[in-house]
Amino acid sequence: MSKPTKLDTKQHIHQLLDNYDNFLFDCDGVIWLDEVLIPGVLDTINFLQAQGKRVAFISNNSSKSRQEYVEKFDKLGFKNITIDIIYPTCYAAALTVKEELQIPAGSKVWVLGDHGIEEELRQQGYIPVGGSDPALDTEFDLDHQLLQVDPHVKAVVVGSTKKFNYMRIATTLQYLLHQNKSLPFIGTNIDRSYPGHGGLVLPAGGSVVNYMEYTANREFINVGKPSPLLLDTVLKHQGFERDRTVMVGDTLYTDIKFGNDGKLGGGNGGSLLVLSGGTKHHDLEELHTLDQSMVPSFIMDSIGELVHFIDN
Amino acid sequence: MSKPTKLDTKQHIHQLLDNYDNFLFDCDGVIWLDEVLIPGVLDTINFLQAQGKRVAFISNNSSKSRQEYVEKFDKLGFKNITIDIIYPTCYAAALTVKEELQIPAGSKVWVLGDHGIEEELRQQGYIPVGGSDPALDTEFDLDHQLLQVDPHVKAVVVGSTKKFNYMRIATTLQYLLHQNKSLPFIGTNIDRSYPGHGGLVLPAGGSVVNYMEYTANREFINVGKPSPLLLDTVLKHQGFERDRTVMVGDTLYTDIKFGNDGKLGGGNGGSLLVLSGGTKHHDLEELHTLDQSMVPSFIMDSIGELVHFIDN
Repeated sequence: MSKPTKLDTKQHIHQLLDNYDNFLFDCDGVIWLDEVLIPGVLDTINFLQAQGKRVAFISNNSSKSRQEYVEKFDKLGFKNITIDIIYPTCYAAALTVKEELQIPAGSKVWVLGDHGIEEELRQQGYIPVGGSDPALDTEFDLDHQLLQVDPHVKAVVVGSTKKFNYMRIATTLQYLLHQNKSLPFIGTNIDRSYPGHGGLVLPAGGSVVNYMEYTANREFINVGKPSPLLLDTVLKHQGFERDRTVMVGDTLYTDIKFGNDGKLGGGNGGSLLVLSGGTKHHDLEELHTLDQSMVPSFIMDSIGELVHFIDN
Repeated sequence: MSKPTKLDTKQHIHQLLDNYDNFLFDCDGVIWLDEVLIPGVLDTINFLQAQGKRVAFISNNSSKSRQEYVEKFDKLGFKNITIDIIYPTCYAAALTVKEELQIPAGSKVWVLGDHGIEEELRQQGYIPVGGSDPALDTEFDLDHQLLQVDPHVKAVVVGSTKKFNYMRIATTLQYLLHQNKSLPFIGTNIDRSYPGHGGLVLPAGGSVVNYMEYTANREFINVGKPSPLLLDTVLKHQGFERDRTVMVGDTLYTDIKFGNDGKLGGGNGGSLLVLSGGTKHHDLEELHTLDQSMVPSFIMDSIGELVHFIDN
């Protein structure tokens, strides 16, 4: 198997800049940890943009809408991050409902997930139901009216939420089982956990999707990384050349697999693992046990280090 | 493959009574649906006991303690169901902590689950923490003191609960990841869903266990059906002869597999599927697609029908 190259010299970084025009970034664990910016990242992104490089952000987190991402980037000091280069999976889910599944505009879509999914569905012309509805913030009640399936619901989207409770799970299950399990079931991502600030590891949206998959005993359409459909969408929207693009992320089974399966970077490889998030230095010892699709082309401690290798 | 025998004649029932001395029953979907007794079941159990047959109840539901089961049986009109013939998986979990894992009495055990687990752990000499603690009934808070792992916790038990929220999940994850995932992780069951009264299908405890398994990315010790360890415990406690025992249940991948894998009934087979719960008549069309371990020896519409085939 091919081994990853650790990018830790000026020469490495100059080669990286020579070989790639477009940089795709994961956010949690790469750009920030919760609300805290990872050191050096702001300078790195500013530098890349100043060099004429194109950047885009692909997050498996579905909780926040694109607009909320723009506001978060802005608050953290980024000045050139606009809505058209941000792809959270709430947006990917709404695009899938519209473009892949061709659900008619005006249809209702049942949501187990946060505000971001509701907002992005609305922007594509759908009516989200369930989701953050406070009527679901209650103790489970067998006679609750929301346990009756609404026939106008045409799809189900499940993603990350901290409002996970039995009432929401039980109502979502009714839609997933409805009419012999025929309503499309979209899952925003497969992430098991995510790195929080202060070293805490927290349950991620993929665990919610997995819960619903298990209890309903049916498969879902994964719209998050490493879905090749999502990559095709981003490359097409942005006009990025596949051979000149690299994916930067902290998770082997989502980010790195996304870049590798998507054949980014041509012969140079297209995945750059950073160790500022969920994957730690000691995890690298087990790289040789993994499928080649999860082995990164390159490794850096943090993308924030990139600017340190540049002569000013 | 061998096909199940539908027990629908007097002769069938008399053969059943000739071949078996001991009847193991699942509860949800076999004896009752939620709080409602399935018709004929009380008469059937009374009849079996009057004939000198021995009965025991093995439920994958971990929410209620054995004492609470006794009270429920009593409330529903059963007069001879005592604590020593009832095996909910909360009890199986506590026995496993003590007998298999040999965790010292007085240790703390972290619980994601209901009152039944806490009560049965206490009865075996442990101190349950987490569980129904109202401090966990809150919105998720990154600074919550309970996110700090208590070093006196020596095992983790996960089971069914309707108090599932992000705070409970996130705290449980800290224990499952603690010290390189070294604390024993017990799951009460693998049930995806359970049949509620009125035809509603609801998420079951196995989905909670599966959620924690996925987010922590580690395997659990399953103490519920079809675990052969649980069957060995029941047969030994009760002094039941394996060849003269049959398991009656409504779920193929738990109850029926339990009886089959456990080689109950000797040459006659040891699993009786009833259609009063989660498995429906139309599901039988797919029996031939399943592994032989999930194909029942016998089928009845309901165990409540047994008395109808008896001459009075």
